[in-house]
Amino acid sequence: MTDEHFMQQALGEARKALDKGEVPIGAVVVQNGLIIGRGHNQVEMLTDCTAHAEMIALTAAFNYMGAKYLPDATLYVTLEPCVMCAGALYWSKIGRIVYAAADEKNGYRRVTGDKTPFHPKTKVESGIRGEESLQLVKAFFAARRK
Amino acid sequence: MTDEHFMQQALGEARKALDKGEVPIGAVVVQNGLIIGRGHNQVEMLTDCTAHAEMIALTAAFNYMGAKYLPDATLYVTLEPCVMCAGALYWSKIGRIVYAAADEKNGYRRVTGDKTPFHPKTKVESGIRGEESLQLVKAFFAARRK
Repeated sequence: MTDEHFMQQALGEARKALDKGEVPIGAVVVQNGLIIGRGHNQVEMLTDCTAHAEMIALTAAFNYMGAKYLPDATLYVTLEPCVMCAGALYWSKIGRIVYAAADEKNGYRRVTGDKTPFHPKTKVESGIRGEESLQLVKAFFAARRK
Repeated sequence: MTDEHFMQQALGEARKALDKGEVPIGAVVVQNGLIIGRGHNQVEMLTDCTAHAEMIALTAAFNYMGAKYLPDATLYVTLEPCVMCAGALYWSKIGRIVYAAADEKNGYRRVTGDKTPFHPKTKVESGIRGEESLQLVKAFFAARRK
């Protein structure tokens, strides 16, 4: 299974959010080729601004594994994590983070700058299917402005 | 009701965590003199490293208020919030944050430095019952080393 495949799965989660009127962001957590957690943004449905795709996918993965650290897992998410989600990923000691598109407004780098907020062993990559992710977000906000 | 009173309530939450073998950190969210959310660290019980006192107290407050922002509320927490909790507090647009003791190791300032991670309107104070909070944390780690 490739990064492309799992990012498609994360984009599928983002589309579920879009269908429910939520900002379309999705995430999956993968270990040994298996999806061990999924999540999409549920801020509106839960009336809880902490219900981000990454938080939900991480909690699902902790539950599935019965573990509170995920050093051998990869998180795929359609948009650069915010500061909160970056902090959660730090605690998780996750092995790898792959995000599709940068988020200039709310991405963690806006606050943390050159300092990585993640565990020293966590690898970070970006750019896979970034355009597709941004199109979803743009479609959402264009529809809201109508 | 004073800040002292509500920090005592947060310390009471921290003691609940201690009794359960969790790192003793507690939080309450207050609006108009009423506690609208409570939480204590449940990382071990839930096997979820995102189950911090502040996250649980915030989600409880969102549920109680049926609102996803808390501009008129104050969060009292016994230790300086970590990056994750600081990010959650940013999203909540909470009016005021009061923490008892600084956390040199995992507090948000370690990563954010001089940049505030909070909403521009959020006020931050610290130092109320800080010594009491640190004593709880020290007692926990001393017991673990035995």
